[in-house]
Parts: sequence; structure tokens; C-alpha cells
Amino acid sequence: MNTFGHLFRVTTFGESHGPALGAIVDGCPARVPLAEDDIQPLLDRRRPGTGPLVSARQEGDRVRILSGIFEGVTTGAPVALIVENRNARPGDYDALREVYRPGHADYTFQAKYGVRDHRGGGRSSGRETLGRVAAGAVALKLLSLRGIGVAARVLSVHGVSGEEAMAEEIRAAADRGDSVGGIVEVVATGVPAGLGDPVFGRLDAAIAGALMGIGAVKGVEIGAGFAAADGLGSEMNDPILPGGGFGSNHAGGVLGGISNGAPVVARCAVKPTPTIARPQATVDARDRPIEIAVAGRHDPCIAFRLVPVAEAMLGLVLVDALLLREAYRGFPEGR
Amino acid sequence: MNTFGHLFRVTTFGESHGPALGAIVDGCPARVPLAEDDIQPLLDRRRPGTGPLVSARQEGDRVRILSGIFEGVTTGAPVALIVENRNARPGDYDALREVYRPGHADYTFQAKYGVRDHRGGGRSSGRETLGRVAAGAVALKLLSLRGIGVAARVLSVHGVSGEEAMAEEIRAAADRGDSVGGIVEVVATGVPAGLGDPVFGRLDAAIAGALMGIGAVKGVEIGAGFAAADGLGSEMNDPILPGGGFGSNHAGGVLGGISNGAPVVARCAVKPTPTIARPQATVDARDRPIEIAVAGRHDPCIAFRLVPVAEAMLGLVLVDALLLREAYRGFPEGR
Amino acid sequence: MNTFGHLFRVTTFGESHGPALGAIVDGCPARVPLAEDDIQPLLDRRRPGTGPLVSARQEGDRVRILSGIFEGVTTGAPVALIVENRNARPGDYDALREVYRPGHADYTFQAKYGVRDHRGGGRSSGRETLGRVAAGAVALKLLSLRGIGVAARVLSVHGVSGEEAMAEEIRAAADRGDSVGGIVEVVATGVPAGLGDPVFGRLDAAIAGALMGIGAVKGVEIGAGFAAADGLGSEMNDPILPGGGFGSNHAGGVLGGISNGAPVVARCAVKPTPTIARPQATVDARDRPIEIAVAGRHDPCIAFRLVPVAEAMLGLVLVDALLLREAYRGFPEGR
Amino acid sequence: MNTFGHLFRVTTFGESHGPALGAIVDGCPARVPLAEDDIQPLLDRRRPGTGPLVSARQEGDRVRILSGIFEGVTTGAPVALIVENRNARPGDYDALREVYRPGHADYTFQAKYGVRDHRGGGRSSGRETLGRVAAGAVALKLLSLRGIGVAARVLSVHGVSGEEAMAEEIRAAADRGDSVGGIVEVVATGVPAGLGDPVFGRLDAAIAGALMGIGAVKGVEIGAGFAAADGLGSEMNDPILPGGGFGSNHAGGVLGGISNGAPVVARCAVKPTPTIARPQATVDARDRPIEIAVAGRHDPCIAFRLVPVAEAMLGLVLVDALLLREAYRGFPEGR
Repeated sequence: MNTFGHLFRVTTFGESHGPALGAIVDGCPARVPLAEDDIQPLLDRRRPGTGPLVSARQEGDRVRILSGIFEGVTTGAPVALIVENRNARPGDYDALREVYRPGHADYTFQAKYGVRDHRGGGRSSGRETLGRVAAGAVALKLLSLRGIGVAARVLSVHGVSGEEAMAEEIRAAADRGDSVGGIVEVVATGVPAGLGDPVFGRLDAAIAGALMGIGAVKGVEIGAGFAAADGLGSEMNDPILPGGGFGSNHAGGVLGGISNGAPVVARCAVKPTPTIARPQATVDARDRPIEIAVAGRHDPCIAFRLVPVAEAMLGLVLVDALLLREAYRGFPEGR
Repeated sequence: MNTFGHLFRVTTFGESHGPALGAIVDGCPARVPLAEDDIQPLLDRRRPGTGPLVSARQEGDRVRILSGIFEGVTTGAPVALIVENRNARPGDYDALREVYRPGHADYTFQAKYGVRDHRGGGRSSGRETLGRVAAGAVALKLLSLRGIGVAARVLSVHGVSGEEAMAEEIRAAADRGDSVGGIVEVVATGVPAGLGDPVFGRLDAAIAGALMGIGAVKGVEIGAGFAAADGLGSEMNDPILPGGGFGSNHAGGVLGGISNGAPVVARCAVKPTPTIARPQATVDARDRPIEIAVAGRHDPCIAFRLVPVAEAMLGLVLVDALLLREAYRGFPEGR
Repeated sequence: MNTFGHLFRVTTFGESHGPALGAIVDGCPARVPLAEDDIQPLLDRRRPGTGPLVSARQEGDRVRILSGIFEGVTTGAPVALIVENRNARPGDYDALREVYRPGHADYTFQAKYGVRDHRGGGRSSGRETLGRVAAGAVALKLLSLRGIGVAARVLSVHGVSGEEAMAEEIRAAADRGDSVGGIVEVVATGVPAGLGDPVFGRLDAAIAGALMGIGAVKGVEIGAGFAAADGLGSEMNDPILPGGGFGSNHAGGVLGGISNGAPVVARCAVKPTPTIARPQATVDARDRPIEIAVAGRHDPCIAFRLVPVAEAMLGLVLVDALLLREAYRGFPEGR
Repeated sequence: MNTFGHLFRVTTFGESHGPALGAIVDGCPARVPLAEDDIQPLLDRRRPGTGPLVSARQEGDRVRILSGIFEGVTTGAPVALIVENRNARPGDYDALREVYRPGHADYTFQAKYGVRDHRGGGRSSGRETLGRVAAGAVALKLLSLRGIGVAARVLSVHGVSGEEAMAEEIRAAADRGDSVGGIVEVVATGVPAGLGDPVFGRLDAAIAGALMGIGAVKGVEIGAGFAAADGLGSEMNDPILPGGGFGSNHAGGVLGGISNGAPVVARCAVKPTPTIARPQATVDARDRPIEIAVAGRHDPCIAFRLVPVAEAMLGLVLVDALLLREAYRGFPEGR
């Protein structure tokens, strides 16, 4: 399943070392001004940077719109987005062809499909997010037209907060050939009340599925999240104020699965980059025990790379919920 | 959206004080022995019990199968399940008609629909889970035929573990007119490797969406979950052992969105029951500030009630993923 | 797959001789006045009548709404509709348990499911349409609020038109222990331009699928239909008039898959009732050749029974397309 | 909605004069040998030919696979297919910018979207079928691995059969600046019994939707089709023979919505090409009446161009139904 959404539907494709990656955005409203310049900045933010702490692979990752635009606006037809792979060096990965890397999808891809594109992780590569992010940028553009803003940031790394302290943790881990996890928070402001459905189409469930669906994410919480499990009802209920506001936001903007008009706040737990230089026990394709120590292009902390991905995914959820709500606004009175 | 699943599809209906609640299970394999006795036990486990710590509403909650069964086995036709409401006392709720209870869906339902069945929470009542649990019992029956077992339990309440300590926390909160949250863990054993898809149909994403879609759940984690964010790669990667096993299970049975054959382990953070006897600030339907202190039928800790619901939802996710995998097992060789 | 529609989703259940049949309508707008009296008339029109030309089974077929209504209006929650089977006489069908009736689904159900509820055709009975018609009545109610009307009628029977001539054909066939087919036309007026999508969500494709999905329908055409295949472009193009109208309606209200504002006109070819008294060659469950001559409750011409079903299905397609269009009306300008 | 299918899902994109057209095939089984050479022949068959009777636009229409293939076999990841537009001459269409061509989607696109890519019909161009045909070729490859063959042909043109007679009709129409319709029949052989579902997922309904979803198709029939409406039950029922066969195939291979093992036979009515040189009445974008006579690249009979499209669409329906059936084959016994 490579399609996401009900009305604003995104289908992605592409592998780390194939000719190209991308997405088709279907269900985009017509007459929205849209150009590659609306999409490129979010892609640029997910690119590996420079310096010792980040992945060394350098790709321009320029997006190209192949369809759905006429004279600068969307036409209602599907918007196809493509990013070509230019810096692919598949030869780098020959050593991994017959090895299952711990913490990666190598083992499960092989179990599921009986075949595996081992080059850079194939479809399970972090480059897969290119399609999501490109499509998410379209969603974020639409949301901005309605005054909805989405922003993510890294809250902590290896249990530590603050920019310098986090950098220090990452550097220390890298020095040991190790990696660290982190927590990414994503917040949407300006979300109107009434998005989401009560039972299976809950907004919080959609957000949880969307964020947990990002590679390396192992937990998702909304509002008070896990802290709510340790709290009292008298602490966790948000007082309702006259005029449509709330005295606090333990709910994280969602009550009964439906947005309540407060900021939507979600956090994801990002596991440490599984690719590390320290030796690890695993097996090869013939089920023989081996030790692996992976050198190559990787980040010691993937959390920062997921910031634009989290924004993209929350954007996709919100625009889909917004369109769904629109469908019912005219009933029963008609227009 | 009141339908869940792609191949094994469950559509639920019903409100707290309407004539009946239930579900249609569509996509159930044929020739599976199925009777009401397969479903009733799970429903019984979600019923309020007796004693001072639990909800006072007493319903028999007897399930009836209306279709899809012939001479004791499923026929492949949709299985309709119905539970009649018998102990409905809508008059109890007249006082709440014009009030938005903090922590409940009253406010958001009104914002979304412009109308609200205030009786017992209507569609947002905990009784809504009757349909999910009945359908989930069918899923769990199917899974058991494949050797897959699903079991949930309450790990902690108000930050405290152990049966007696948890009971004490609940009693103390109840005595103060307050309520407590808790953590529910659900584990599936016997899950074969290969369930779930890499990108948008990830098994972990489906589980997160399914569990976050249960009312009162504010967080979901898989395997190490939020602890992974504070850990190192060298700690969190699970060594792969010869013979298809793993040296640990920080992954919680899912790698790259696909099951790896290890037990699938998920936890939900359940917020404290929002209905409490202590006074809270809110507004009425005319946006006037009021204070509310709710007496009535409610549990001081909803986590225990969610145990069978969590099993049901994980069961629905797994049987859907299992059927989806089956679809591809015969290709390309044919049979 | 027992669910129909994307936004206005209908899931049906039930067999000819089970306890009940019905449907869940999900995605119904809130605040629409709805009662059983809005639904019963369409159900009454699909009931077998009296007299020698029609089926002898007498069922009251009273619909009951189980959910989704509060104080006379819809709440946005799923509307469950149920009709109990009262006049089931399963014993009548014992003789058919081990026989595959020609022209019926007996053979294919057995091939597909390996089990078959032979009583009255089980899920493949004409009674299955009860759920569709009940749900369709809700759709037609919604459409009427927007000034859209849907009406079907039998155009011809056994190639003959006119009420008396058709009755004569049916009587003559019945006298010979035979049955006749017919053509049902269904027309929707007041349909606004802009419903349907260009490629896979075409309105004409949805109508064709919906009508061909009615049991016994073997062909569907829109507007000029098959006559268009024998015509010239200069004859078949509809001139476009100032003010938004057309000089003719060979298109049947759909151009490029999208409604053009003209009446939507579709016709279905209904095959003769497969159950006939004349002897036919078939096999039994052990693959032995036998002859079968079926007595029992059946109509010699099923076309008249399909009139309300065709209205229901067209209603479902249109309300779904209408809601989908609404989703996009506010973009990009916002509201 | 630009996605087709439930398990084997095809999402298409592209316009007549944009940079490229194509499709993403999601849900393709892994380990299937697949190369561009498997796809190109079907694309070549849908290309305009040479000579006076066919469209003059010359495009190489070379397909390129962008993802989902590794070392010559599918990997289970989405297969992205792209065809670049090379011979686009948008300037040819300047005269049509402000005109609604009768029989085309110009009017309805404008009504629906409020904007329209007028160049060559934009998304409503016949070139849109490139994506479907490319994806359909993948489906046909899969079907061939199971011994299922799909073949379409033109049965008649302007009511006339036989190759020479049809060519004569087309030439005569072209000479008069007119166009003709035709009937395309598509047949699938080797289809196993048991594909399709009884109610809303009927195989015949899926076929009808798929074929009616091809531009210019105004009618679809299965087996005896409209002739069944004029027939008797004793004529139309197919005798069932020992050994799993039928004495005739009025059913067209589908009984009760499920394949019966006989060849699946469907026919589409194709309207005459709406673009004709003879003058027609229409309006311009300011709703002023004008006369239009279109010169340019077009076929006087579109039916021949739809032959590979019909094969593609039937292929997509069948492979989807086949995968769906596979999902249930292992239950309940397990494997």
C-alpha cells in the first residue's frame, strides 16, 4: 500500500538507487497557484546537510512537476512530482547484498517479498520520504491558504534538550561509532474545530498512523500523551472557556477524535539510526552468524531529518480531514 | 468513517441510548466455524463489573448474529452482529443536554455536526466499543486458527504497577471524586514474519492508528517505544540470530513496517476517565461559564475496560494484514 | 465487498432466510430530518405484489432505524437500517440443497466459498436488495433536498413496449412455464453540472458499475448507448446552447465522465427470471446430470422489481458524487 | 479519483500536452519478471498508425520503468511507468481555448474545475489512456502467468461488420467530414471460477465500471447483454454440464457476480469521434453561440484505438479479482 489519504490521496514510488522517486497527488483542488518553488524548500530541509554529523550523500533533489498544472495553477488533475536520483553509487552496497543489517528492514523485506533491492535499503531507504515530503509540501501550501500552519522541531536527543547539549550527544555517539534517538514534536496552529470523525476516522488515530508510518518512529503521543496515563482526571481535563477556547491543552487539540480548535500537538519517538560503525551480531543470507560493522553514508541521529517528514505527514492528514469536512458543510441546507 | 480494514472490513453503528449497537464484518473467510459463543466472552470482559470501583450500568450485552452463518460456519457473506440496549436510562442525562463536559467529545461533536445526542455520550460513549469488540472477537477467532494469540493487560495505573497498588490508586482517586489513567500493553504471539507493507501500509502504523483510535488513548508505542528516543543504536538494535530469531525485541516485532516473527508488543497511554465528581470549569450551550460536577455511572479508571478493546483492535489489524499477505503468496509461481 | 460509495458509504448484510437483512449508511450529513416513513415507501415498491404474475412470498418488510437519529434528525453517526425476515420457509428449499439451478449463483457461490446457504438463494437472493433500497431511500431523500429527482420505469418486456402488451408477454411466458426479460430506464433530473471525475471516478462508470451490480442486469447504457455505436458524429454530438443547455441529450447527461446539467439517463438490460417451471439440464452437487423444473415463489419478469432498486443505486451514486464535489467547492478561496 | 483497483492499484497522471504521462502500479506481486519490453507492445498497439484514416500525431510513446524492479524482477515496491510527451504542439490548440467543443469534456471540465487545460483536451485527451494501457500491460503479464488471456477486437462500425465493410464506412464518413461509432468486444479466456463478489464487488459490475470508464464508451454489456432483455428464460439460462462446463454462454462467464469458469465476454458501445470537420453549433467561453468545424489530428473512428485500452481495463479488473480471491484461499485450514 503506497497510497495515503481519502480525498487528498498521495501515492509514492521509488527506491534509493533507482532512476527516480516521487509521488502523485490526487484530489488536489483546482485553481490553486502551485509551482516547483512551493515544494523545493521542504525538500531542501530534508536533505542531508554538510559537516561531520550528517550523511555524506549529496543529491540536489530537485523536484519537477509533470502534470496537473496549467498556467501556474492546479487543474484538478493529478499532480505528479518527480525527483531523479543522480548521486546513486550502488556499488557501495555490494558488501550488504547478502547481509541482514540489525534494526533495518533487510530481514523483513526478504521474508515478505523473497527478493530485495539491497542498494541503500531500496524502498526502505530514508530517500523514500522524498515522495511524501514533496506531496506534503503541496498539502502545507493548501493549509496555509486556510491559515493553518504546521511546524516541527527536535525536542530532545538521547534524553537531552537544548541545541548545544543535543549536538554534544550526537557528536559523542558518533565518536563511539554509535547513534542516538530523539523526540520530534509537530504542532499545527489555526486548525478549525470539527476535523476528524468519532470512531474509525479519528483525527488522533490518523495522526498516530501517519507519524508511526515514518521509518524509525517507535511511538506517538498527542497532547499530554503518556504523561496522561500517570495523571489524574482533575489534572488532565482541559477547562472549557467561553468563546471557544480551553484553559489548557492536555488534549493536544483533539477531543473524541475531533479537533477542538486548540493547536494540534503530537510527538514522535525516533529510534537511534540503526546503521552504526560498532560491530553487531547478525546473520547472512544463508543464515550463518556473522558480525557486521557498517561504514558509509549515514546520520548518527535521524531525528533532525524527520522534522520536515513529520510536517509533511501532519499536513497530509489535516488537508484530507479538511476536505472531508468541507464535503458536509453545505448539508442539509444546500447552497 | 465507521469502517475499519481493507480486506477484513468492520463497520460499526450505534449509540449509548439508541435501540442497538453492533457491527458488520465483511470479508470474513468462508467455512470458519462461528457462533455467538465465540464472541460473547470478549464482550463479557468489556462489560462493567460489580463493586465500588466500576460503572454501575448493568447491561447483559448479549450479541446476536444476524447473517453470514449457515449451519454453524461462515458463508463468506457479511456477518452482522447486534447488541440491544436494554438498560438505557436517557432521563439520567437531561442535566447534560446543554453542557459541554470537559475531556469529553460534547464540544467537538457540537462543533462538527451542529447536533448532538447527549444521552450517555451518544456515539462517543464507551458503549461504541461494543461493535468493535464483537467484530474483534471474530478476528481473534480467525487468528487463533493460525496459531496467533493476542492478550492485553494493564501495566500501570497513575504511574504505579502491581495489582494491589493499582487498586489502591483507583480507590484513592475515587474517594477524592477523581480518576486515574493507566497504561495498557497488548501482545500478539505467533505472528509470522511478512505482515505489513513498507510505506503507507506499515504494520506499526496500522497498530498505532488502531490503538490511538480507541477513545481515551493519548499515546501508542511499539517495542521500546519512547525509551528508544533516549537510547543508543548499539542498545536498541536487536541482534539477528540464526534460525530466524532475535536476541532482543526492542523492535516490538516490527522492522521497516513489516512483522519480523517476534512477538508484536504495543502499549497505549490511557487518560484518566474525564467524568469526575470534582467540580470543573466549562461552558453551557449558550457559551456561559458554569461549573460541572458529574455524578452517575462511570469508572474511575477506564484502562481496565480497554483491555478487550485493545485486543480486538490488534486482532482486526493482524487479520487484515494476514489476509493481505495471503493475496500474494501464490504469485508468481501460481498454484 | 459489501460496501458501496466513497463518502456516502452503504454496507449491506443479510440473506433470504436469515434472521434479518439491512444496511449501515455511513457518511450521512447531520441535521437531515429522517424517519422510517422516509424509507418505507421505496421498500414497499420493491415488495412482491399480489396476483398471478408476481411472487407469492409475503413479507411486511418493515424497516427499523437502529442508530444515527436523534429527535428526528440525523446526527452524523452511522444510520443502521434493519428489516426482519418473518415469512421465511426454509423447508421449501430442501429439494434445491444439492442442485445447481441454471442462471443462478448456486454454482459460482459453491465454487467460490465451498459452502452455500441454499435457502432461497441465500445472499444472492433478490431479498438482498432490501438493504440497498433502504439505504438508497436515504440517498434519495438527500437528493430531493437539493432538487434532484430520480425515477425509473420499465421501458419494454421481451422486446415489447406499452403496459398492456408487456402484461400480455409476461402472462404468456408464465403460462408456458417460462419467463421474460426487460429494459429498465432510470432518469435523474436536476443534477448539477460538475459531478464525477475525469478518469477512474467517472460518473458514467460509477452508474454502470452500480446498475450492472444489480442481480439479473446484463447490460447498461447511458444516453444514446448502443445506438451511438451505429451512429455518426454529426448525429451524436449534442449542440451546446447559450445559457448552459444542450440541443439534444445523446450524452445522457454525462460528458467526459462529468455531469453536464442535462438529465442523467441510463438503461439496464434485465435478463429473464432464471427460475422457470420448464425443465432444464443441470448437475447436482456430485456432478451428476439431472433435470430441474422449479416450482415456488418467483416472478416471471423481474424487471418491475428492479425499478426501485435502480432508483436506489442511481441515488447512491449521485449523492456520493455530490458530496465529493462539495469537498472542493470552498477551495482555494476559503470561506 | 485517479486510482483504480483494490489490491492491484493503478494511479495515472498526465495530460495531452504536459511533460509526461504515466502510472504507478501498486500491489504488484514480487519476483515477477518484468521489463519495458513487456509493456511497450500494448502501448504500440494504442498508438495512432499511418495512412489517411488515422490520427496524424506521431509520438514514439516509449515507456520507461522508474521503480519497483531489481535485476529484472518486481520487488513488491510500486512500479512507476512514464511516457514523455515529445510531439506536443500546444499552439495548434489556441483556437480552441475559448470554445467548448460539442461531445467533448471542455464544457464539463470548465463547470467542474473553473479552469481547463485546453491543449489537446488536457486530462480528457485520449492520451490519458497511455497510463492505463501501460499499467494494464503489467496486469496482462501477470494474468498470462496464470493462463488467462485477454483479447479485444472491433465487432462492427456504424452498424456494419467485416474488415472491408468497416474500412469503407470509416472512409465514407471521413470523406464527409464526419465520424462513426463502433462496438468493441473483449474476451478473457482461462478465467477460473470464483472471481468477484456477490453484492457490491461483483465481477460484472467491476467490468462495466472499467469499460464505461473509457472515454467515448456509452454502453457495456456482458454475455447476451441487451439481447437478454428481449429473450426468454428458457433461452437465456445456460445449461450446466457435468465436469464444470456450460452448454452455452449467455451469462458471459459471470453468474451472480462471480466468474463461472466460462470465457468472460463483454462488449462496449463506442460513440463516434466527437471531433469532426462538419460545422456544429456551440458556445464560446462567454456563452455566445458560435459554429465550430475542427480540423486537426483525429481519427474518424475511435473504436480501433480502444481495443488495447479495453484489454488493459479488463486485465486490471481480473488481476485485482484474482489477488482478492487468493487472499481467502488458505482459510480456514491454514497452510
